[in-house]
Amino acid sequence: MRAFNNMVSGESYNINDPELIEIRYRTRDNVDEFNALSARAVTEKDRLVRTIFGRVGENVHFEKGMRIDYGCNTHIGNNVFINFNFVLLDCARVTIGNNVFIGPDVQVYTAQHPLDPETRNRHIGSARPVTIGNDVWIGGGCIILPGVTIGDGSTIGAGSVVKHDIPAGVIAAGNPCQVKRLCAADKLSEIIE
Amino acid sequence: MRAFNNMVSGESYNINDPELIEIRYRTRDNVDEFNALSARAVTEKDRLVRTIFGRVGENVHFEKGMRIDYGCNTHIGNNVFINFNFVLLDCARVTIGNNVFIGPDVQVYTAQHPLDPETRNRHIGSARPVTIGNDVWIGGGCIILPGVTIGDGSTIGAGSVVKHDIPAGVIAAGNPCQVKRLCAADKLSEIIE
Amino acid sequence: MRAFNNMVSGESYNINDPELIEIRYRTRDNVDEFNALSARAVTEKDRLVRTIFGRVGENVHFEKGMRIDYGCNTHIGNNVFINFNFVLLDCARVTIGNNVFIGPDVQVYTAQHPLDPETRNRHIGSARPVTIGNDVWIGGGCIILPGVTIGDGSTIGAGSVVKHDIPAGVIAAGNPCQVKRLCAADKLSEIIE
Repeated sequence: MRAFNNMVSGESYNINDPELIEIRYRTRDNVDEFNALSARAVTEKDRLVRTIFGRVGENVHFEKGMRIDYGCNTHIGNNVFINFNFVLLDCARVTIGNNVFIGPDVQVYTAQHPLDPETRNRHIGSARPVTIGNDVWIGGGCIILPGVTIGDGSTIGAGSVVKHDIPAGVIAAGNPCQVKRLCAADKLSEIIE
Repeated sequence: MRAFNNMVSGESYNINDPELIEIRYRTRDNVDEFNALSARAVTEKDRLVRTIFGRVGENVHFEKGMRIDYGCNTHIGNNVFINFNFVLLDCARVTIGNNVFIGPDVQVYTAQHPLDPETRNRHIGSARPVTIGNDVWIGGGCIILPGVTIGDGSTIGAGSVVKHDIPAGVIAAGNPCQVKRLCAADKLSEIIE
Repeated sequence: MRAFNNMVSGESYNINDPELIEIRYRTRDNVDEFNALSARAVTEKDRLVRTIFGRVGENVHFEKGMRIDYGCNTHIGNNVFINFNFVLLDCARVTIGNNVFIGPDVQVYTAQHPLDPETRNRHIGSARPVTIGNDVWIGGGCIILPGVTIGDGSTIGAGSVVKHDIPAGVIAAGNPCQVKRLCAADKLSEIIE
């Protein structure tokens, strides 16, 4: 488990370590099984997501088209809705809070490659955790980058690329994602899926 | 049909209403069947898209990897080409005109959640229609947000996030999508898929 | 082969030419077969990618969810990793060098439609080649547009829309993608998947 432990703790690791490859194979097979089920197969889908992820709370709904790297490093709270085509590279810990809405085609990355090609080409990587707070809505098509924390109650506009932490209680959007305003409790979104 | 009628007319509705869940299940099963067909199965694909969508004109071509929420709320004109991995959340009416090209990985959203987490967590949503005019080309990877109308003859650059209406006869691009110039009839695109 | 030769050489061609449709059907069937395999089916996956693409070097790894237009126009070097959901419209030549990392949900386009709706509606297109150099890392969710060359050793930040050439040895990001700085050989990325 040395490669796995190094990876999860943020140390450098070889992304082609056989131990890691085997975990990824197992996750891909489970995810394939999930993606092949009818949307009506609620019990079987629930059994599979509890096999794939490290923790899954109550009342969690996943749509089809998931692509997951490890799964076991991802902990998901209660009342979470994850829409179509979720992509998750959870080489480090990914924490998703309670009451979280994630739109279609959202991608969460923890994996980093070195910017130096020589090191990168030896397949040395490292990873940084991602934390999504409670009561967060992530609009469709967003990309959440390694090391990012999104604060409680915030909303991320569709198509945003989130490179830096987002505080609690704000509306943020754009590429790169920036805070636009405080969350106005009495308004419906005009800008966000 | 009360929940469905509320949803389509833009009123607040509960996204977990059993009536809506059943329509979504039926659409997902049909879309799964479509996505599993060989590209050569032209007749069978045509039969399925006419089952999935509210209206489909003549000479309409869909590539694989569709993800559709309801389908019945979407009306598509003649001579329409929709490329790979189209994502469509058609809680309100979606109208696609004649002679429309839609690139790969395009997402069209009508669904809105409240920005106030307390209301959002009760799964209350609302929806606003999307209208894509005639002779429109939407570049790959674009996201079209609730309430947007794109005018006839316009082109939307790849990777744009369209938050506001786009007039007819223009080239628009960016995140957020903005008009760049009038459509020059004699030029091939340098910027758009 | 007249339509195919016109297409590959950048001349105008009819995208609905029966000869081109047949090549696309064949590629889609092969890609479907690839996408349906278990991640563990290493030998069978390798055989299929060598059928799909024009050239594939040694030690090339593809994840699932590919969508490919022709495949035969794409030449891939050694030690290349292509992550989930790669979309490739290779109507013109696509060259991918040695030691290239491509993140999830990356799209490479060579196909252009005319901006003039009247010409576009006659299904006349043209295509421009894309070249990705050696030692390049393309972050997840990037879109590479027709005619673009990315220089050796450069890194493209996640979610970028690359409309123009990127020189060698730089970090570039954004929509549209712009050079941010020279590649710092001693730093791990904070910004890129």
